[in-house]
Amino acid sequence: MFYHVKELQYQAKPERPDPVYAKKLQEVLGGQFGEISVAMQYLFQGWNTRGDGKYRDLLMDTGTEELAHIEMLSTMIARLLDGAPVGAQEEAAKDPVMNAILGGMNPQHIIVSGLGAMPADSVGNRWTADYIAASGNLLADFRANLNAESQGRLQVARLYYETTDRGVRDMLSWLLARDTMHQNQWIAAIKELEAKENVVVPSTFPKHLEKQEVSYVLFNLSEGDESAAGRWASGPSMDGLGTFQYVQNPAPFGPKPKLKPSPPYIFNTPPAVMRTEQIPPNLM
Amino acid sequence: MFYHVKELQYQAKPERPDPVYAKKLQEVLGGQFGEISVAMQYLFQGWNTRGDGKYRDLLMDTGTEELAHIEMLSTMIARLLDGAPVGAQEEAAKDPVMNAILGGMNPQHIIVSGLGAMPADSVGNRWTADYIAASGNLLADFRANLNAESQGRLQVARLYYETTDRGVRDMLSWLLARDTMHQNQWIAAIKELEAKENVVVPSTFPKHLEKQEVSYVLFNLSEGDESAAGRWASGPSMDGLGTFQYVQNPAPFGPKPKLKPSPPYIFNTPPAVMRTEQIPPNLM
Amino acid sequence: MFYHVKELQYQAKPERPDPVYAKKLQEVLGGQFGEISVAMQYLFQGWNTRGDGKYRDLLMDTGTEELAHIEMLSTMIARLLDGAPVGAQEEAAKDPVMNAILGGMNPQHIIVSGLGAMPADSVGNRWTADYIAASGNLLADFRANLNAESQGRLQVARLYYETTDRGVRDMLSWLLARDTMHQNQWIAAIKELEAKENVVVPSTFPKHLEKQEVSYVLFNLSEGDESAAGRWASGPSMDGLGTFQYVQNPAPFGPKPKLKPSPPYIFNTPPAVMRTEQIPPNLM
Amino acid sequence: MFYHVKELQYQAKPERPDPVYAKKLQEVLGGQFGEISVAMQYLFQGWNTRGDGKYRDLLMDTGTEELAHIEMLSTMIARLLDGAPVGAQEEAAKDPVMNAILGGMNPQHIIVSGLGAMPADSVGNRWTADYIAASGNLLADFRANLNAESQGRLQVARLYYETTDRGVRDMLSWLLARDTMHQNQWIAAIKELEAKENVVVPSTFPKHLEKQEVSYVLFNLSEGDESAAGRWASGPSMDGLGTFQYVQNPAPFGPKPKLKPSPPYIFNTPPAVMRTEQIPPNLM
Amino acid sequence: MFYHVKELQYQAKPERPDPVYAKKLQEVLGGQFGEISVAMQYLFQGWNTRGDGKYRDLLMDTGTEELAHIEMLSTMIARLLDGAPVGAQEEAAKDPVMNAILGGMNPQHIIVSGLGAMPADSVGNRWTADYIAASGNLLADFRANLNAESQGRLQVARLYYETTDRGVRDMLSWLLARDTMHQNQWIAAIKELEAKENVVVPSTFPKHLEKQEVSYVLFNLSEGDESAAGRWASGPSMDGLGTFQYVQNPAPFGPKPKLKPSPPYIFNTPPAVMRTEQIPPNLM
Amino acid sequence: MFYHVKELQYQAKPERPDPVYAKKLQEVLGGQFGEISVAMQYLFQGWNTRGDGKYRDLLMDTGTEELAHIEMLSTMIARLLDGAPVGAQEEAAKDPVMNAILGGMNPQHIIVSGLGAMPADSVGNRWTADYIAASGNLLADFRANLNAESQGRLQVARLYYETTDRGVRDMLSWLLARDTMHQNQWIAAIKELEAKENVVVPSTFPKHLEKQEVSYVLFNLSEGDESAAGRWASGPSMDGLGTFQYVQNPAPFGPKPKLKPSPPYIFNTPPAVMRTEQIPPNLM
Repeated sequence: MFYHVKELQYQAKPERPDPVYAKKLQEVLGGQFGEISVAMQYLFQGWNTRGDGKYRDLLMDTGTEELAHIEMLSTMIARLLDGAPVGAQEEAAKDPVMNAILGGMNPQHIIVSGLGAMPADSVGNRWTADYIAASGNLLADFRANLNAESQGRLQVARLYYETTDRGVRDMLSWLLARDTMHQNQWIAAIKELEAKENVVVPSTFPKHLEKQEVSYVLFNLSEGDESAAGRWASGPSMDGLGTFQYVQNPAPFGPKPKLKPSPPYIFNTPPAVMRTEQIPPNLM
Repeated sequence: MFYHVKELQYQAKPERPDPVYAKKLQEVLGGQFGEISVAMQYLFQGWNTRGDGKYRDLLMDTGTEELAHIEMLSTMIARLLDGAPVGAQEEAAKDPVMNAILGGMNPQHIIVSGLGAMPADSVGNRWTADYIAASGNLLADFRANLNAESQGRLQVARLYYETTDRGVRDMLSWLLARDTMHQNQWIAAIKELEAKENVVVPSTFPKHLEKQEVSYVLFNLSEGDESAAGRWASGPSMDGLGTFQYVQNPAPFGPKPKLKPSPPYIFNTPPAVMRTEQIPPNLM
Repeated sequence: MFYHVKELQYQAKPERPDPVYAKKLQEVLGGQFGEISVAMQYLFQGWNTRGDGKYRDLLMDTGTEELAHIEMLSTMIARLLDGAPVGAQEEAAKDPVMNAILGGMNPQHIIVSGLGAMPADSVGNRWTADYIAASGNLLADFRANLNAESQGRLQVARLYYETTDRGVRDMLSWLLARDTMHQNQWIAAIKELEAKENVVVPSTFPKHLEKQEVSYVLFNLSEGDESAAGRWASGPSMDGLGTFQYVQNPAPFGPKPKLKPSPPYIFNTPPAVMRTEQIPPNLM
Repeated sequence: MFYHVKELQYQAKPERPDPVYAKKLQEVLGGQFGEISVAMQYLFQGWNTRGDGKYRDLLMDTGTEELAHIEMLSTMIARLLDGAPVGAQEEAAKDPVMNAILGGMNPQHIIVSGLGAMPADSVGNRWTADYIAASGNLLADFRANLNAESQGRLQVARLYYETTDRGVRDMLSWLLARDTMHQNQWIAAIKELEAKENVVVPSTFPKHLEKQEVSYVLFNLSEGDESAAGRWASGPSMDGLGTFQYVQNPAPFGPKPKLKPSPPYIFNTPPAVMRTEQIPPNLM
Repeated sequence: MFYHVKELQYQAKPERPDPVYAKKLQEVLGGQFGEISVAMQYLFQGWNTRGDGKYRDLLMDTGTEELAHIEMLSTMIARLLDGAPVGAQEEAAKDPVMNAILGGMNPQHIIVSGLGAMPADSVGNRWTADYIAASGNLLADFRANLNAESQGRLQVARLYYETTDRGVRDMLSWLLARDTMHQNQWIAAIKELEAKENVVVPSTFPKHLEKQEVSYVLFNLSEGDESAAGRWASGPSMDGLGTFQYVQNPAPFGPKPKLKPSPPYIFNTPPAVMRTEQIPPNLM
Repeated sequence: MFYHVKELQYQAKPERPDPVYAKKLQEVLGGQFGEISVAMQYLFQGWNTRGDGKYRDLLMDTGTEELAHIEMLSTMIARLLDGAPVGAQEEAAKDPVMNAILGGMNPQHIIVSGLGAMPADSVGNRWTADYIAASGNLLADFRANLNAESQGRLQVARLYYETTDRGVRDMLSWLLARDTMHQNQWIAAIKELEAKENVVVPSTFPKHLEKQEVSYVLFNLSEGDESAAGRWASGPSMDGLGTFQYVQNPAPFGPKPKLKPSPPYIFNTPPAVMRTEQIPPNLM
């Protein structure tokens, strides 16, 4: 159960409106690796954790914080949109600055949200749960989390250099720091689980049931052997259970597949037609 | 540029048809962490890599292999659907086995694909590029890859136990082994990049521009301090640049936000209405 | 900013597992009118409210409560999935009860979420922000809210009769009661705003700029005049500004449109081809 | 069954082309609350109405009209795109007006639709049936309709002020008037149903089966008690069946949830790993 | 502008309810090639046709008919759902027929639409305008239409054999016949346009601007030369402007690409890291 | 199974960066009829073909080539983005060229992909398998392919005129030529199948089971009889099995539908409410 206080976790006040930047900032609110994604991902992982304890608590701590980040970004975007102009294009075209603003804005910030933030990314794709993962396997999921925080901090870093507004940058410096923490914490949690289990997910699947002769083999399927120079192509495998090998000219292990004809009630191309391989005379 | 040979990378032949299992197997073909996802993710990462060399080559090697896995799964699914029945439900209901088959199949395997595999997951959601990431930052992207292989191998492991067909299990044992390799290889590549850069992505963002006082702080936002017991709550941070701290009672750092009224041409609720906080007499 | 406590707002414990029902219950968690939808809708409306005061506070109160409902439903679904079977279909088909369970389950509850709740509806569509509205106009948005609570309570009522599990029904009785409150509260808020403004949204658009001769007219465009018997077809309009009229045989007010040809660089069907209306001789 | 006449319900002719405005106008054609949404919503509600009579007829009357609005908007958009330029950006940049046009256009209006309207919103999201509702419960659905007409008219009002073209404004004045009627008519229909049933949907669910002690309670879950001042916090409830109460400090009613471990064949994090809460020595 | 009459274009009455079949029948209502798709596709093509005349009229005739087919299918589905059971699974499992019905139904037909048709396909994906095309080039679009009618009739044929209900089959026999007509009419229209223009779309793009040396070449990129036996591999090309050639061993025409490093403010993997190809010592 | 070589099928090198054009070019990479669509469509059709031989080989040849086109376009887009600027809007607005670039770019090319191509269209919609078809019936599918190549070549032609960059045009001239071949080849394959089967898909559905009296009838459902002048309205039908007829005033063949009330546990509007058609007194 949740409680809300009206104060923001950190201030979210730009020096001045900038509706073009508001559009861009949507990416880290409602994009694939935005704050909605991490909030929902951590909360669902937390709720699905079977077993109490520190992992579940960590997920709930962090998921709850991300809700505060959604709030900060929504507030910032609404303020960047303050008084955004609505103007006929023919007039705007005469004023290059106005024109730049109108051309670069998300039109839905006027028409749909009335100068409010939207649960959408920087090109207007609405947020979707396609973006998140909660598998019940914490090592897998913490890797999803580390990925999300890495992609997310990268995007905030890029956005930092797309503005000179000190208020915006101040808030982004908060998010960058928190993403630093969150990357650190998921790395710590991953190391802990890797030490307890093994590095390959899921660690409990019986080793003898996989085709072990290809468990540590790199197939050179893209011409050129630059990749043979990597750590992944020789030496002991990272899980300590094998040795990396590099196969220069990988051949197929399987035969050509040939599918049986389908039954008539499927109405696929009839086998007779499929077989008649010569060209009908009237087409020559 | 690509070349195709008709042979499969590994055989994909079930002992017998099982259209219900065909539906489930779609998950690792066209689901969020299925083979289409990893193929497209690695290829796009490879094509976008700025700089030649082993990372790009590794991505193209692996992306090209995943195309072969799409092919194997498509072949297997088509064979699991061999001769799948089409029957009026009233008749099927009399035969419990038939009934189980018809009730558990994906109806689109008959109606839409005519006994063929689909680029969709186990409940019929069509594949979407929402699932993949290619950011231009290899450390971020290799973490995305490690996550994808972890989630993917986990799903294959679960599917292994949902069938007893030796042909299906044989193919899955191949995929499990290859996922073992791919997890190992991305871990190797990640370690290499972490050693060259640092563990926090992006490593090149100037440290002093983030709000460093909260870069290593865990806020206890979910009541209960189980998470204080983790490696992430004390000791040196994983990036070696700070010390983890645990904040038992985190308070807001920011003020209550108050947004300005919008201009009249936005047609939001007028400020006067917003201000009049007493209840109109006729509503009491 | 948010705080979380580990206790649930209300208990969420079924008498026994029922993975088939877990699939159905997803509808009110992650469906169009599920708890994710109302949580996100109210929170975004609250954050975008320009002006402090009771409306914003009400939205935040209620949005925060809906987060607790997501948590309750996630918990319930995970418990309904407790120990859900994974079995080869050929074996399951021999046991009708097992068969019914396997056939009726969402396969992703095994393969993807590992017996956890998903941000998806009862057929597996992932939640999307397409479902929600936050326009900046509170009267419009409170109507969206009343709709969401009406559709949502309707769905919970239907689900109540799809189970006899007393634990599930107990939790649903909580949700039904809360939806009763939420419908009541949005009706109250709507009435208040309608009294302050007018019933037509947006109330501030200048009346003379709309084509007033058709502002209160019902066009009988579907043959049969049953609809003439409604309150909407005669008498004073609900906004008190006009009189309803019923037009038995509505004729077009506009001319036939004729679009100009496109320029050649668009490569549409060329005007010459479009004009030549006779059939070419070789086709007769 | 439907018949089409070539005349438009109302004229749709701009004074001059304006491809930037064409992009914006897409919102009320193919957006969440655009004409496709209301047409499809009303028609599906009508077709699903169980029982003949005035409600079904009203839905079919109005749904049929909305098809005419799709046609008017499509025609208007095609004309706004008349002769839209296709130019290399380096040349366009020299001419600020041309530049403004090219930068603000939807590129798909050239590349994909060849100067035609698209079933998409103002940022290019294709129309989806995620936007609509047809539940079989008319009171719920008429609330969905009132919401759609409120959001839709709001968007048209905003668009009215984004152009000075008298032809466009003339057509919008028609749509504004029709939306006035449609809001009035759904309000009338809602009032009629509320008078026959009760205000809470569904009215037929047995009252005693909901947890009545919380049916009229506002939980103050967002700090600050501004919302206590609303009509929804005291006095008789809107359904006449209870009394509103305001709970200042809402506590959880339920216990902390604890989920059981999952079976081994799910391959979640093993319970032993979950339990071992101390940090492994090699990580300190 | 449209008019509606209450009569159906053709009767839509099953002999008896069959909620499992209702789920399947959704495919040709709201699936990729269902009636919503063809209605919307033809109407948008018609509205966007620049030039009056027979093509536009044909599109509007047919698009208007497809609206009637949506209506027929919606009616049929509602009737197939008549009195569909809502039962606790544990009870249903005792009755195999009931069990088959409940397991095979779309749960949203109860929970969401209240026994009504939905704008969705047979697995519950909501209809999306991703499915349709309207390009402004009629030859391209008529090919889209012929494809849609071919896929659509194929699906109806498959559905015909999934039921023995004479009422359902009677209605499907109508749709099959209409799809026969629609395939015939689009073939006729295509032949007419091909005769006026040429077979390659767009016919007006200057021939000399394409790389003509590869305009009629089949590259054998999938090992094995079965495809050399086709009409497409030798003889005059279908457009009469070239000669088909078969290239047995196709080589690349382009060089290896090498992308420049990105600027520092993009925060991609730094060039120095990309270049250092040896493995750091601590990883060996 | 696939092999990759590093060389491109054809060169992909622009004369100079043009990030605005990069955004547009995304359409033919990741749009509805872009290269991802044709690659996936042909490969899935090939893998699902039941029967070996030339059709399957042709599909695999062409699908494999389309993978090379994805690669070429990705490379071109990355180069068009070379060094794309990231600037605060207030500064950019002073420089009209910079402003034009920033306003016209896809912001995700900076924030999300770090100057790389994306699997998305020109407005940012991510690629989805909604776009493709693989039905198992080759005649239906080759029509899908001909449509895709027609729409695709049309889009490339339009894009050709949106740039003057000789490098870009050079690559587009390759794609235009290949689309010429692909249209030619699918036409050849279609003609072959039509000669072997018949023109109506599926050719194997028993003719007597369709309602033959309407198999060749054009219903004039859109007022005006321009369409009566077409080849489709008179003369022998294209399948040689009937005669086209034109029905000037088409009447419904079916009755008015009337749906039964739903059971109480569905909670739809109760029949009593539905029946009471008079307006309650208190609403007059």
